[in-house]
Amino acid sequence: MLTVEWKDNSVVLVDQTKLPSKLVYVKCKDYSEVAEAIKKLVVRGAPAIGVTAAFGLALAAHASKARTQHELMTDLHTAFKVLQATRPTAINLFWALDRVMGKAKRAKSAQEVKRVVLDEALKMFDEDISVNRQMGTIGAKLFKDGDIVLTHCNAGSLATVGYGTALGVIRAAKESGKRLSVIATETRPVMQGSRLTAFELKHDGIDVSLIPDTAVGYMMSRGVIRRVIVGADRVLRTGHVFNKIGTYQVAVLANKHKVPFYVAAPLSTFDFESSPGEVVIEERSVDEVVKVGKRRVVPKGVRVFNPAFDMTPPELITGIITEHGVLTPPFEKKLKTLLG
Amino acid sequence: MLTVEWKDNSVVLVDQTKLPSKLVYVKCKDYSEVAEAIKKLVVRGAPAIGVTAAFGLALAAHASKARTQHELMTDLHTAFKVLQATRPTAINLFWALDRVMGKAKRAKSAQEVKRVVLDEALKMFDEDISVNRQMGTIGAKLFKDGDIVLTHCNAGSLATVGYGTALGVIRAAKESGKRLSVIATETRPVMQGSRLTAFELKHDGIDVSLIPDTAVGYMMSRGVIRRVIVGADRVLRTGHVFNKIGTYQVAVLANKHKVPFYVAAPLSTFDFESSPGEVVIEERSVDEVVKVGKRRVVPKGVRVFNPAFDMTPPELITGIITEHGVLTPPFEKKLKTLLG
Repeated sequence: MLTVEWKDNSVVLVDQTKLPSKLVYVKCKDYSEVAEAIKKLVVRGAPAIGVTAAFGLALAAHASKARTQHELMTDLHTAFKVLQATRPTAINLFWALDRVMGKAKRAKSAQEVKRVVLDEALKMFDEDISVNRQMGTIGAKLFKDGDIVLTHCNAGSLATVGYGTALGVIRAAKESGKRLSVIATETRPVMQGSRLTAFELKHDGIDVSLIPDTAVGYMMSRGVIRRVIVGADRVLRTGHVFNKIGTYQVAVLANKHKVPFYVAAPLSTFDFESSPGEVVIEERSVDEVVKVGKRRVVPKGVRVFNPAFDMTPPELITGIITEHGVLTPPFEKKLKTLLG
Repeated sequence: MLTVEWKDNSVVLVDQTKLPSKLVYVKCKDYSEVAEAIKKLVVRGAPAIGVTAAFGLALAAHASKARTQHELMTDLHTAFKVLQATRPTAINLFWALDRVMGKAKRAKSAQEVKRVVLDEALKMFDEDISVNRQMGTIGAKLFKDGDIVLTHCNAGSLATVGYGTALGVIRAAKESGKRLSVIATETRPVMQGSRLTAFELKHDGIDVSLIPDTAVGYMMSRGVIRRVIVGADRVLRTGHVFNKIGTYQVAVLANKHKVPFYVAAPLSTFDFESSPGEVVIEERSVDEVVKVGKRRVVPKGVRVFNPAFDMTPPELITGIITEHGVLTPPFEKKLKTLLG
């Protein structure tokens, strides 16, 4: 099962809003459908969003009726702007769009633009899986046979093209012969833990238990959890990690209970420019909070805050697993060494 | 609106499983209906459970066809056992049942047993509101005009006969002229925050906002929250507080962000006997976690943990508001002084 795929000049996505009760695929035939799919969480997870957006540009290039290279670039730029405005926090979106546009700009003809845009998107598609595999091999060494590992949200195959970042490390640890049990948080309000993490781990035969987000502290205080691993939507050069709302408090609890806290993030998730205060935290619709199924459970007129992400500071992070190795504190210095 | 009431030889309860969409009253005509109502959370909240159980004994006494005092006590004891087995953590249940049975045992005739059982239950009903008012007056002094206060679960009028413990303090602060804003957590899995706290504060014109349980750390890190106040299901003489799952992690976060953390609990919630390891933490049905409305959102075969309570240790607690005054650390010593 691939989360996102290029097929017959369309972008095919697993509709993650329907999981786990239905496995439905959505076919996007133009870039505006791709943009809508990203906004509505049909596809989510920083790496998956990146590759999907890249394919969105490929759709725009393919559909363009431009006669000149200049006109084609104008069309591409329009699509770029629309795709860029879908979600603000996950950096892979901007990274992917910039990378594809960079290739397009260096092309020498309209024909070449169309070709390189699709080629680059397909290359990123391939890289995503291989990078996850590399992170898996590197990260698996941090886990011990019999570990009970807590994860928050979904940083699995459904957050990437396939295999996963945090769950990729868990898969790799399992493949290397270590027995792991996973405790997944529900991850309110969108329930990525209940719906997606439980689904994909169960599917792969990896032992998984679910807890409400309110039970993390209790489980830690009982000494049940040996390690935490999560994904990331953006990692700053200082080691500040932006990830799903609730990650920060899991990190605080892990720190209090001396449980190692790992982040698995490919370099495409790193933001080498921004400082912590500059990153926009997406506020999502209150409907995600006030409705249970189709029924409203919150009285009308009650104000709701629904921030989708939070920031975990470097002092709470034991290590950041990348495809080039594990970064440990001080992150800024180690990152320079890692990148050479 | 009274959460629990004695009316026409019946116990009338607000059905809290139906709130906020419907305000429905349930009439219990015998003690086994009362026991079911407690089990199914038709009535919940430690003080409300206590008074309801006391009325349950009154129903048993009233309905008994016993001819002798001894037979009546046997019937009462049967009801006592059934009511006692409904929920294990909130101590008010056991406190209320023991108090009523104590009165019954000292009565001198069957007739007197019937009378004192009802009288004692009605006395506890009255006391509950007056004790909440006293806690309110005492606790209100700890809050400042303009405070933004976080609360978890529902320790309001719906958790008591009326007025509330934690929310009673907030009501009293407001009545004393202080403007307070409340941030309520959803409180997964049963959503007492979304359904009950938001409902009753909105109803009373107290400013209330709702956040997912995952956003507590984020709100603290932004410096939004000035104080935390929660209720309790059981307070040990050492100051260990058993309360709704998630309370412990809110306390850890408050401590990290130097936000005062208060517990409002009447002396009926104190357990002077048990040590922390002896208190049973209720595990509730997995259905509370796996279903959203009537739809199952968790794949079948995924293990679920659903502990209903956790324990907050005294070192995370700034003060415990009782009807006799505010306890501060060291709690065990201050409790002795308070009780004389």
